[in-house]
Amino acid sequence: MASNQFGTHFSVTSFGESHGKHIGVVIDGCPSNIVIDEAHLQQELSRRRPGQSEVTTSRSEQDIFEITSGVFNGKTTGAPIAILIPNKDARSKDYSELEDIYRPSHADFTYKKKYGHRDFKGGGRSSARITAGWVAAGALAKQILATHFDIEISAYVSQIHSIKCPKSIDYSANAIEDSLVRCPDDTSSRKMIEAINAAKEEGDSLGGIVSCVIKNCPIGVGDPVFRKLNAQLAHGQFSINAVKGFQIGSGFSSIVQKGSELNDEWTYDDGNYTTKTNNSGGIQGGISNGMPITFDTAFKPTSTISKEQTTTNNQGDLVDLKMQGRHDPCVVPRAVPIVEAMAALTLIDFLIHRCP
Amino acid sequence: MASNQFGTHFSVTSFGESHGKHIGVVIDGCPSNIVIDEAHLQQELSRRRPGQSEVTTSRSEQDIFEITSGVFNGKTTGAPIAILIPNKDARSKDYSELEDIYRPSHADFTYKKKYGHRDFKGGGRSSARITAGWVAAGALAKQILATHFDIEISAYVSQIHSIKCPKSIDYSANAIEDSLVRCPDDTSSRKMIEAINAAKEEGDSLGGIVSCVIKNCPIGVGDPVFRKLNAQLAHGQFSINAVKGFQIGSGFSSIVQKGSELNDEWTYDDGNYTTKTNNSGGIQGGISNGMPITFDTAFKPTSTISKEQTTTNNQGDLVDLKMQGRHDPCVVPRAVPIVEAMAALTLIDFLIHRCP
Amino acid sequence: MASNQFGTHFSVTSFGESHGKHIGVVIDGCPSNIVIDEAHLQQELSRRRPGQSEVTTSRSEQDIFEITSGVFNGKTTGAPIAILIPNKDARSKDYSELEDIYRPSHADFTYKKKYGHRDFKGGGRSSARITAGWVAAGALAKQILATHFDIEISAYVSQIHSIKCPKSIDYSANAIEDSLVRCPDDTSSRKMIEAINAAKEEGDSLGGIVSCVIKNCPIGVGDPVFRKLNAQLAHGQFSINAVKGFQIGSGFSSIVQKGSELNDEWTYDDGNYTTKTNNSGGIQGGISNGMPITFDTAFKPTSTISKEQTTTNNQGDLVDLKMQGRHDPCVVPRAVPIVEAMAALTLIDFLIHRCP
Amino acid sequence: MASNQFGTHFSVTSFGESHGKHIGVVIDGCPSNIVIDEAHLQQELSRRRPGQSEVTTSRSEQDIFEITSGVFNGKTTGAPIAILIPNKDARSKDYSELEDIYRPSHADFTYKKKYGHRDFKGGGRSSARITAGWVAAGALAKQILATHFDIEISAYVSQIHSIKCPKSIDYSANAIEDSLVRCPDDTSSRKMIEAINAAKEEGDSLGGIVSCVIKNCPIGVGDPVFRKLNAQLAHGQFSINAVKGFQIGSGFSSIVQKGSELNDEWTYDDGNYTTKTNNSGGIQGGISNGMPITFDTAFKPTSTISKEQTTTNNQGDLVDLKMQGRHDPCVVPRAVPIVEAMAALTLIDFLIHRCP
Repeated sequence: MASNQFGTHFSVTSFGESHGKHIGVVIDGCPSNIVIDEAHLQQELSRRRPGQSEVTTSRSEQDIFEITSGVFNGKTTGAPIAILIPNKDARSKDYSELEDIYRPSHADFTYKKKYGHRDFKGGGRSSARITAGWVAAGALAKQILATHFDIEISAYVSQIHSIKCPKSIDYSANAIEDSLVRCPDDTSSRKMIEAINAAKEEGDSLGGIVSCVIKNCPIGVGDPVFRKLNAQLAHGQFSINAVKGFQIGSGFSSIVQKGSELNDEWTYDDGNYTTKTNNSGGIQGGISNGMPITFDTAFKPTSTISKEQTTTNNQGDLVDLKMQGRHDPCVVPRAVPIVEAMAALTLIDFLIHRCP
Repeated sequence: MASNQFGTHFSVTSFGESHGKHIGVVIDGCPSNIVIDEAHLQQELSRRRPGQSEVTTSRSEQDIFEITSGVFNGKTTGAPIAILIPNKDARSKDYSELEDIYRPSHADFTYKKKYGHRDFKGGGRSSARITAGWVAAGALAKQILATHFDIEISAYVSQIHSIKCPKSIDYSANAIEDSLVRCPDDTSSRKMIEAINAAKEEGDSLGGIVSCVIKNCPIGVGDPVFRKLNAQLAHGQFSINAVKGFQIGSGFSSIVQKGSELNDEWTYDDGNYTTKTNNSGGIQGGISNGMPITFDTAFKPTSTISKEQTTTNNQGDLVDLKMQGRHDPCVVPRAVPIVEAMAALTLIDFLIHRCP
Repeated sequence: MASNQFGTHFSVTSFGESHGKHIGVVIDGCPSNIVIDEAHLQQELSRRRPGQSEVTTSRSEQDIFEITSGVFNGKTTGAPIAILIPNKDARSKDYSELEDIYRPSHADFTYKKKYGHRDFKGGGRSSARITAGWVAAGALAKQILATHFDIEISAYVSQIHSIKCPKSIDYSANAIEDSLVRCPDDTSSRKMIEAINAAKEEGDSLGGIVSCVIKNCPIGVGDPVFRKLNAQLAHGQFSINAVKGFQIGSGFSSIVQKGSELNDEWTYDDGNYTTKTNNSGGIQGGISNGMPITFDTAFKPTSTISKEQTTTNNQGDLVDLKMQGRHDPCVVPRAVPIVEAMAALTLIDFLIHRCP
Repeated sequence: MASNQFGTHFSVTSFGESHGKHIGVVIDGCPSNIVIDEAHLQQELSRRRPGQSEVTTSRSEQDIFEITSGVFNGKTTGAPIAILIPNKDARSKDYSELEDIYRPSHADFTYKKKYGHRDFKGGGRSSARITAGWVAAGALAKQILATHFDIEISAYVSQIHSIKCPKSIDYSANAIEDSLVRCPDDTSSRKMIEAINAAKEEGDSLGGIVSCVIKNCPIGVGDPVFRKLNAQLAHGQFSINAVKGFQIGSGFSSIVQKGSELNDEWTYDDGNYTTKTNNSGGIQGGISNGMPITFDTAFKPTSTISKEQTTTNNQGDLVDLKMQGRHDPCVVPRAVPIVEAMAALTLIDFLIHRCP
């Protein structure tokens, strides 16, 4: 399978590099006659774009997209949809001194060894900048999921470093977006911003958790045994840069509970089956059960820090490294729309054939 | 993509049900001229088989396999390899009273709603019994990985309920297998066995963590951006029944560290690049970096318990449920070879084309 | 992609060899709640089975199938369906002297060079015997296409050597089956039988054409640009042993016509669009247009002949070869159900997601 | 599977429409460290471009390509390669009167019915203009096949209407390119040009055959049983617009020969196995045997003609149609590089993993 492609039915092919002409995606399998909500698509890109706030990198990209294929007279035609997002504010010279260096916990070493040479400018293809294309494709997926299936996908930051906010499936999109760090709990949000600013000042970086809630997913999504919904969600989330862990429903905390405590008993009321608890996170046997789907994605602290580190170059020499380029002290707030986008692309691949 | 198939190049198609004639797999893409190590294959099946010890279910299956295609004169021919494992000790009557009941945290409800009817005998296709086929295919994968690439895959139980054993990449296969619960640390092992027996007596069940270590994986395995090695590993692990979480390297614990603490700095010695720490778990940018690959898979407590629960049936009636069938009070020890098998099937899909 | 698998949505995995325990297929993607018409399935296998008449090989196989997975209480469950067909009348000793010989126009040389060794008994995996599995899967596909979409697929022999029968889309299934050679035109049928018997006496073999007609295919089947219906049909037909050519609609004869002669003009009557002629064979731009789909598949004369030939062995020595085993003097009549099966498997892959 | 994607390992995603901003392809799976031969790539595009001679359409496109991803410092990086080809000379007004008309033997009706609306300008996505992208990708494939495997792929026009040229595997590339119609036999070439010009004057169109020869293909390419080399070649060729038939080696003419006449007997000389004849067209059992691979692709006469035709529009009204736009009186000469490109893309998908 093409390794730059996600999805079998609503299939997204990604291309482009951080400092190339543009970032792009081709979406194959989108039904015809859909009026793309361009304002929504632009808004999603803006949620992800660099330079959006004081807690993000200062690289300034507006990420104004262009659609060059697959739309005619304002509607999709069933042909592949190409979306291009230009790179405007690349400063490649910031990276020239990194050409030979294997930065700690970056992909420099592995790309070099796998491919023999590498596009070191802005991280090239290993940069999280390429997720702009995924967010564009995910925005279209979210639009279709909302319109045709009433599905809502909403993620928020539930933890930065050791600061946790209460978990809930009921945070509003507004409350999330009103926070610079996309944490809908005011107190936690303030502490998180402080922590990030403190880390920034130290030249250090922080990680965290993005929690995602999917509401109104129809019952029956997911195919046993190797295309389970949870497995596909995990696959999509682990495609995102800096992800270290993924858990569904009660996740790792399930371990310290017994079966009798954790099991979700069924109840029936007025034609609807629901479970009293939702430790299953909405998925049983790899198939959605109608309850909200909940999962968490863990991000490590940004590998790029300005604090001094000692590593080696491709000659095996020790080098002292203090990175000067623009970078995020914490990628987690900007990861929120990416988490949603990959969740949307995962879901739509199961549902697209049910669209008229 | 076929949903009962894992892998693109070394492709495993799974079929069969818990109480059917047999469990089967077809392996497509195995090179020719390989002498299958049948003793090894049988041994792996025995590590997984029910009835192997006091802490497992008492269903007694020897799981003696038969190969009916793809081998000629003792060697693989390049044709698809079919492996069949008979079901001998199915007691379907144990399940007849469950026909209409939606057991808590089982796949009864979702299978019923997705497929309209379901094979309720022994869980049918949703039973973990079908992983016997995966273990058979994984055994062949492990053999090829060991022979051609010197790769070792070894998993152990690092946690049952709240009992944790120290994590290490150096536990021996013998130490692991000598423990009934596959926990190589004696003290922890004893406590885990006690805990499982206590839960069993209460009619309850326990979950835990299987930790896996892959040694000698060549540098360069994994394809950005949607076929990252970590994403494929996650996908494989989440295919296993009862899995709730997956993490790579330092995983969720990365969050409470800063970049300067977590980053893996490179060193060079005598022609080899290694990292001082291995928080990356051997994978950077989705590509193996030559360090040991380490990951953890979290299993919930078995959903089947004999303690009374209150749930509903397909008429919406409340039912009091006390399950009498044979079942594991804790699946984690038997999950060890399954975790290894799925890791092996994940890895070999990247490496098989390098075999002569 | 797995090379022993056909179809993405209704996916058929083939395994087994000519002289192994059984021939098998696993069908993944079949909807649940279908009552498999076992009599129909057996009948299709009987149309393909060896020993069915004087013009076929005398190997005697009843091809009684067994379903071991995917069916519960008489109905499909949505799980993979495994179908096994035993080999009962293999005479492997007939083949022992062929072990080292590269038979002319067989796959002996290519299998040997590709795989290093080969299962020479009855042709092993390169034998047309493995199409028994395809016919079983195709029978299920035909059943679903007929039941859910009213689609009829019917093929007949339109040419053996230089004897042609008039082409028509209106031959009845009975007329076809009443002929030993599956040629519905009496005069041609008689001549064909004579020709085959004459070739048999000479120890020689004949080829021919199977013409296939698909009626009631809904408009809109086929996906531009690399999953065109005609391309998928061609792919399926070329998977059949001994196929040398494939053409759609007016095919190769289109060349000697001008555009003004060949173009299919549209007419409209009573709510229906039809074309005055059907040189397009029911497909335009890779998509079905509602007219009957017509195509031809050309089969070479059987490579196995008893006439003496001079070829080489794997030592490079010249050998005089007179093959004594049982073989068909002309495979074309038995190819008819295989052509239909591959057409059915091709079509259903586009349509299966429209089944309830 | 994505329907605008060809190839699993060297995977080409196609996008763009005839009158859109550009035609594009994304190539995923190309090895790193390849210096793309841009002159060769441009030359292949020029062989396909419209307006190249008096026998082609007068639409004037230079088809100057741009690479926007996957190349760094002049070499491929292993990242997806995006190639864009602008549309410069689209005259959409020529098509405005065709908006509602179902042109005979075009894809107007099927696109309209499948997608609900269609991009009628220049044929939109159903136009052969999109093959420009395939030719660009194919040029890269040809370069790699030539450089790494010494494989030569060369096609020529062997028939236009009833004018046939002698078939041979030894025509030089120069002799082919020196002919306006890419027929290397002088006498035939002249007659073909006359015939095309005569048809053009009548407002009519002609079809023909492109014959392709692949030399130096290694033994062992092609995977039984559903990924046979001949089946994949057929699939690729049938993806090309206007193709009606495909045959391998002796093809349809095999039928009138007996087994004893057609069989390719093996000989051995000086370490090499060859067959005395090559009716197999270099492929046996779906696997290349080291002999030249030969196949023929049949093209119908262009559906677009200026002669009056009577067809219907989307209201069911009869309309008299005389098409005025620019079009080819015979697409076969321009199809030669497309046939080669699809053959190259087919072959490289089997071989790319053998590149260093």
